[in-house]
Amino acid sequence: MNLSFIDPKAFTPARNGNALLTDRLSALATMNRLNALTAIKRAGSGHIGSSFSSIDIFTLLYEQRLKEGDVFFSSKGHDAPGQYACMAAVGILSIENVLDLRRLGGLPGHPEVGTPGVVASTGSLGMGLSKARGIALARNLRAHDGRVFVMLGDGELQEGQNYEALRSIANDGLSQVKVVVDYNKIQSDKYVRCINDLGDIEAKLSAFGWTVRRADGHDFDALTAGFEAMEADHSGPQILIADTVKGRGVSFMEAAPDDGDPTMVYAWHSGAPKDEDYERAIDELVQRVRTEHEGLSVEPPELSSAAPGKPSKLTPSADGKGAPPLTIAKAIGEELVALAETRSELLVLDADLADDCGLRDFENLQPRRFFESGIAEQDMVSTAGALAGQGFTPVCGSFASFLCARANEQIYNNTCEGRKVIYIGQYAGVLPAAAGYSHQSTRDIALMAQLDKTVVVQPGSAAEARALIRWAVESSEESVYIRSLIIPPPTDLETSPSGLSPVGCGVQLADGNDLTILSYGPVLLNEALKARAALSEHGVSARVVSMPWLNRIDADWLFDAIGEGPVFVLEDHSPIGGLGDRVAQTLASAPERAAGNALHVLGIEGLPACGQPHEVLQFHGVDAESVCERVLSTRGS
Amino acid sequence: MNLSFIDPKAFTPARNGNALLTDRLSALATMNRLNALTAIKRAGSGHIGSSFSSIDIFTLLYEQRLKEGDVFFSSKGHDAPGQYACMAAVGILSIENVLDLRRLGGLPGHPEVGTPGVVASTGSLGMGLSKARGIALARNLRAHDGRVFVMLGDGELQEGQNYEALRSIANDGLSQVKVVVDYNKIQSDKYVRCINDLGDIEAKLSAFGWTVRRADGHDFDALTAGFEAMEADHSGPQILIADTVKGRGVSFMEAAPDDGDPTMVYAWHSGAPKDEDYERAIDELVQRVRTEHEGLSVEPPELSSAAPGKPSKLTPSADGKGAPPLTIAKAIGEELVALAETRSELLVLDADLADDCGLRDFENLQPRRFFESGIAEQDMVSTAGALAGQGFTPVCGSFASFLCARANEQIYNNTCEGRKVIYIGQYAGVLPAAAGYSHQSTRDIALMAQLDKTVVVQPGSAAEARALIRWAVESSEESVYIRSLIIPPPTDLETSPSGLSPVGCGVQLADGNDLTILSYGPVLLNEALKARAALSEHGVSARVVSMPWLNRIDADWLFDAIGEGPVFVLEDHSPIGGLGDRVAQTLASAPERAAGNALHVLGIEGLPACGQPHEVLQFHGVDAESVCERVLSTRGS
Repeated sequence: MNLSFIDPKAFTPARNGNALLTDRLSALATMNRLNALTAIKRAGSGHIGSSFSSIDIFTLLYEQRLKEGDVFFSSKGHDAPGQYACMAAVGILSIENVLDLRRLGGLPGHPEVGTPGVVASTGSLGMGLSKARGIALARNLRAHDGRVFVMLGDGELQEGQNYEALRSIANDGLSQVKVVVDYNKIQSDKYVRCINDLGDIEAKLSAFGWTVRRADGHDFDALTAGFEAMEADHSGPQILIADTVKGRGVSFMEAAPDDGDPTMVYAWHSGAPKDEDYERAIDELVQRVRTEHEGLSVEPPELSSAAPGKPSKLTPSADGKGAPPLTIAKAIGEELVALAETRSELLVLDADLADDCGLRDFENLQPRRFFESGIAEQDMVSTAGALAGQGFTPVCGSFASFLCARANEQIYNNTCEGRKVIYIGQYAGVLPAAAGYSHQSTRDIALMAQLDKTVVVQPGSAAEARALIRWAVESSEESVYIRSLIIPPPTDLETSPSGLSPVGCGVQLADGNDLTILSYGPVLLNEALKARAALSEHGVSARVVSMPWLNRIDADWLFDAIGEGPVFVLEDHSPIGGLGDRVAQTLASAPERAAGNALHVLGIEGLPACGQPHEVLQFHGVDAESVCERVLSTRGS
Repeated sequence: MNLSFIDPKAFTPARNGNALLTDRLSALATMNRLNALTAIKRAGSGHIGSSFSSIDIFTLLYEQRLKEGDVFFSSKGHDAPGQYACMAAVGILSIENVLDLRRLGGLPGHPEVGTPGVVASTGSLGMGLSKARGIALARNLRAHDGRVFVMLGDGELQEGQNYEALRSIANDGLSQVKVVVDYNKIQSDKYVRCINDLGDIEAKLSAFGWTVRRADGHDFDALTAGFEAMEADHSGPQILIADTVKGRGVSFMEAAPDDGDPTMVYAWHSGAPKDEDYERAIDELVQRVRTEHEGLSVEPPELSSAAPGKPSKLTPSADGKGAPPLTIAKAIGEELVALAETRSELLVLDADLADDCGLRDFENLQPRRFFESGIAEQDMVSTAGALAGQGFTPVCGSFASFLCARANEQIYNNTCEGRKVIYIGQYAGVLPAAAGYSHQSTRDIALMAQLDKTVVVQPGSAAEARALIRWAVESSEESVYIRSLIIPPPTDLETSPSGLSPVGCGVQLADGNDLTILSYGPVLLNEALKARAALSEHGVSARVVSMPWLNRIDADWLFDAIGEGPVFVLEDHSPIGGLGDRVAQTLASAPERAAGNALHVLGIEGLPACGQPHEVLQFHGVDAESVCERVLSTRGS
């Protein structure tokens, strides 16, 4: 597989060509698209659609509009590959760095502070306007007159925090804040209008005290005029709605105009293109680069070759049975569909992640029992609580980091009302790690474990996930938070050989005499089994125990399960607030029983690192090799 | 002190009088005001201002508009005394229950599910519309045609979640949702317009797809017409903005019309009236009841007498020095004012709780360095992060339960960006307990303890609070979350006799040989000292150790501090996720050192109970007597 990019040095002829600005910018934007696409291909994942819809705006901003002292950031952050490519074109980043997208030590999947030129960490939506407010207030205090430019997504405008900040910024009179909306009309893979319509967006924004303008986001003349008008207007905060096309610039990636078809699924929101699609797209972009350079009467740039990315993979344990046919998300989704047949009270609520969370089939098969809030987790959770109060059994799906943190107070309020709600937090734990810390969830157990009448659990296998969701819907009298791995498990573990283990009790996966490794979730259980194999080569006999229940421990089961040696809790979570804390209280409350059970909690310390699966596990010291070393190091010289 | 109320049976003549409906409703509303005021006086706290601004609407709804099958709840919930009085008038609640406001076993300070006729637990703002959505969706599934009425506050409309739900409800076409806004123009104690202006509220709500109407909220004819129009309109969701006056109905409690004076402080937002104010108000209300009944040509009702409330108090320990001159909130506020003199980078951010959080002086003395988001914690926290990124040291104040839960993802994002922000969570812990579980905070340590580079700490005294805030501003390289008691501490403990104890280390308050009680915060440290005295009468010698650091433990200090006996962590927090977990990991990781240190975590289990201070501590088994008993019970027969 040959990967191509254009060195930023080769942008100079087009940039300085003797031609209309709009034509020069078009040529630069096409080259930026090519580099962004190669970065995504090399990373193995990334957001093509919104990188391409916004790249003309990025190109204009970095090439023309941003002046010394201005600040600019994208609040949505999905468009990082496009933004990075444009930053490399003007020398803020190196192209090598851009091509190292989503790797440890490379550029994160969503912009993060620490990268040159990045002033805001994004990836979770709706915070950007408040950050712009803070930057503008700070500058007012220092009588600094730079502008604060922010790019917003359209789907992002569903988050309630935007409306807090729109009001605050207007009331603070921060006219240096200039916002552009990449209005591509598709959020994730469906039309915004079908997910949760923004309605009359201009009226909404005007009502919040902003001056609203509108322009074709792919017409550099119109965009330039829009920015010029915004920049010249000091009457208050300004917003430019840029009408764009998702996937713009590669014919077969361009979204069809919004015809309101709720079944439309846009194919290029996230993920890397297949080889043949990459090649077709590059061919098209290279052809356009040539044509555009001809139009500028300058030589087209040479293509440089990039080595293919080598994403690190998770290798299954020898004890496993090979990867299961389905992800855990998909297994949960299938089971919900099956449960819906006999359980008319079962409902599913979504915050625009139905596909990733395996809930699309439920939506399609049970449209009257599927409710969409758009990117508005708080609304979803409070709506679910009220549905539960009316006798239904609502299931809320989202990514763990968004669901448990953004809607935490709403979840608490539901427990106060005694509502039974099933929360499914996909993307729990440190993997996949390529999207960066906004998406990785190593705090969610801590955020949920202390809730009244709420069980926190993570299945170690697809089979266990099925059993758990069935138990949660049919049997549990308490709310249940199921944290789930979203990527394919490395192996199919037998974590529930005889059905679901009783609440508070786990299952021994492999026996041993010297010590116990206690873990949960397919990824770290798999690493634990591999660590056991490695330890046996050092003459250490470790048992591996799967513990799906994360805030309920049956003390008798635990003492029985761990025998007499040390206990290593291998935690796909911060070492604070996870299973290790529950084990710790159990052990510490009975020192006479735990005399030989020294506890070691090996968790994800600090911020979760961005990168490929294995390299990130290694970075945090929770891959098999590191665990083996860490265990050995506790055994003295 | 003579407390008066009117028995609901005595409402009948006015209700059934041969007179205009508007006059009958006025008389009923006046009697409801009288009962609400007496409930607040008896409870020792409550929200007079918004009870009185909304009571005409409540009266109209309960007396006239609500039909079988309708649902109604107040989203703001501050108006509970007014709502309860109106519910008692129509027989949903007993008047005895209403007069037992804010007592254990009585009615909670904000409406809570479990009380007859209450369908939503409130007290935290902005969730009501999403709940209305859930109820309406549930009813659509069952082809149930009742209406869903919701009362919103005006300050409440600052919360972003409203705009998520406004959009969702409009998109779902839920025309059975009928909202009334108690638009009294004052939030807490200042004009909404001065805190964070709602701007053109009608334009905003219309832009979200709602039909907006407006009426005088104290004119029963206008209100009735407004409701009739809403009820007859099935074109989509409906909202009625009711222009009201905060404190309406008692001349000296009525707010002045909004003149935009930012220094105006409304005196009757929360708290009970003093005896003489209560008597003046009752005299005025009784006089009006008589006049109105005369107008109806019916006998005025007899007044009934209620026994005065006997709020349970916290009694100081014999070891203490008497109560300190200031609350901890006030001490922190004073110290911030002092720090501002020399630290020009110090800023304070507020979400409409400046007064309660002791930050009003800072606002008045440093207006350029004080930023107000209104009731919009997410905006406040993200703004603070951005200010930190620009080199400032921002301090965010709010109530712990709102700050740590509502803005949790924003706080995490700030840590991701490496921003040093100082978060002050007032109202932390189980006390004061009278406002109910929405305000009590027994989860905040769990929500914050695992954050990267964030220290969680609670001062045990005003002196320690001063030292801590100074350390947080001047010395800490990490973010600091200071949880704080908002009520006057029962006693002035010497928790920092020689300055602040090192991070991870606490201070022994009283010595002992048999066991250790480890605690934090003035309330439970005080109970611990009293428990020690009680234990000594049983021949048990307990040492009491104050541990302000809640997510940092110096293991050597701990083992030194606890000696050889059992350890009781007395936790003003859930037993999950608090200091007990940190102690547990420390002990469990070194079983050879902890052989005699059996751990017992005594925390607030389940939902925090509503009531007066001592009765709630007792309910949760964390008052001195319960602790003494629980300690003795672990020592065998």
